[in-house]
Amino acid sequence: MQEILDASPKSDWRTLDPDRTLYLQVPAGRVVIELAPTFAPEHVANIRTLAKESYWDGLSVIRSQDNYVAQWGDPTDDDKSQTKKPIGSAKPKLPAEFERKATGVPFVRLPDSDGWAPEVGFSEGFPAARDPRTDTAWLAHCYGMVGAGRDVAADSSDGTSLYAVTGQSPRMLDRNITLVGRVVQGIELLSVLPRGTGALGFYEDPKQYVPITAKLASQVPEAERTQIELLRTDSKTFETVVESRRNRRDEWYKRPAGHIDLCNVPLPVRKIVTPN
Amino acid sequence: MQEILDASPKSDWRTLDPDRTLYLQVPAGRVVIELAPTFAPEHVANIRTLAKESYWDGLSVIRSQDNYVAQWGDPTDDDKSQTKKPIGSAKPKLPAEFERKATGVPFVRLPDSDGWAPEVGFSEGFPAARDPRTDTAWLAHCYGMVGAGRDVAADSSDGTSLYAVTGQSPRMLDRNITLVGRVVQGIELLSVLPRGTGALGFYEDPKQYVPITAKLASQVPEAERTQIELLRTDSKTFETVVESRRNRRDEWYKRPAGHIDLCNVPLPVRKIVTPN
Repeated sequence: MQEILDASPKSDWRTLDPDRTLYLQVPAGRVVIELAPTFAPEHVANIRTLAKESYWDGLSVIRSQDNYVAQWGDPTDDDKSQTKKPIGSAKPKLPAEFERKATGVPFVRLPDSDGWAPEVGFSEGFPAARDPRTDTAWLAHCYGMVGAGRDVAADSSDGTSLYAVTGQSPRMLDRNITLVGRVVQGIELLSVLPRGTGALGFYEDPKQYVPITAKLASQVPEAERTQIELLRTDSKTFETVVESRRNRRDEWYKRPAGHIDLCNVPLPVRKIVTPN
Repeated sequence: MQEILDASPKSDWRTLDPDRTLYLQVPAGRVVIELAPTFAPEHVANIRTLAKESYWDGLSVIRSQDNYVAQWGDPTDDDKSQTKKPIGSAKPKLPAEFERKATGVPFVRLPDSDGWAPEVGFSEGFPAARDPRTDTAWLAHCYGMVGAGRDVAADSSDGTSLYAVTGQSPRMLDRNITLVGRVVQGIELLSVLPRGTGALGFYEDPKQYVPITAKLASQVPEAERTQIELLRTDSKTFETVVESRRNRRDEWYKRPAGHIDLCNVPLPVRKIVTPN
């Protein structure tokens, strides 16, 4: 794969928009999350407000369930007896943004079959799915995807409680909860967190909470921003990467699979390469 | 799911055969691995010999690659200048056991489509796949599955270096490497290990190695064995569990998926329940 990436034109790479990039800081380092306003405009707007008003500063990762998700937010969220942290000028109520109209959404379709959706592929860098019959498109729960926790009501998420997928793609969550973006760097800082011993992997002892802060990249001085670029999923190079993974031709592989699952496609990220 | 399991007859559960159960001890606790002699008889025989002769005692987890595998064995394995730990009476060479004849192998097929194989399902508790056209069956690389590391030659694994899947199912490895079993308890002790910073997630500094020992359950006094039982994958209860996951009917889910991926099927394990 490195050879394919090394041969790629600079124009096949894009940088992150600092206004839709969230830096989640955990003790071990920075987790970089690209937000997906095309799919979750209201949630992303709220997350931007929450970040600007330092909502997450002093809150924690409160859940780590093996082979599933790590989740952060207000530890008092599920405890009706406790006062929740005020959300400032963020909206207290958002619509469910489980899917949207497909027409007008860029979509690079994979030819590979998928059991969960009629069509799968990539949209603006995110793993996504589509149903031409209903003209709907949605983001897919692959490793590293970030969503907004909710209660039983479909429209009960406000973006304050977020989770990142740290296990086998839980695609059954697709169209059941609002995905808001994807970890593009630092997922391993979340995936190694000790698993919670409570139900659903919640930490039972507040001493286990992992302290966080979160900011938009645009709130951070330019020199302190994470300097990475992402391979465009609508580029020829990306198509070549996918095919090189669908049919591994290196000496080690004895039987190319002839197939790739949406969530096995790597999404290449690298330090920004400055052309000479 | 708990309700379904609570209602299951005791006969739907099975205990582990101590002669084909490997206890991998890491500092955080015991990882319990069920071996799969039906699919990898030669590898399992060698692993049993290695365990009985304490081969792994004093060796280490040497690799942890995010969203992929944790691997343990002899740290000097890839360094030709160093003397490898002697393997005692274990065989130095084994055949590749990537697949086997399907006829005669128990197989409970899932009706769900799969992009990687013509048929998928469960065989003696293990996620597996089958091709009726070629009459072959093989184990599938789902979360927690354990395989035998190899070099470029297909028959270069000897069972000394083992890995467990700790990320999105790398099904492209199916039929490219020998799977030998599955972690049935304690995978979270491996999945949280710090990721190695070397190529492929190998630990670069020997100080990062995680010390291990490994024994067959049969080498451990009965009172010290892990007292668990596993839901039979050929039971009616298991079928009910799978369907309850394929179409989630609880209040939280707004749209049952109508599909389940082989590697999203939970394999229920519980403490041995003694009937009153």
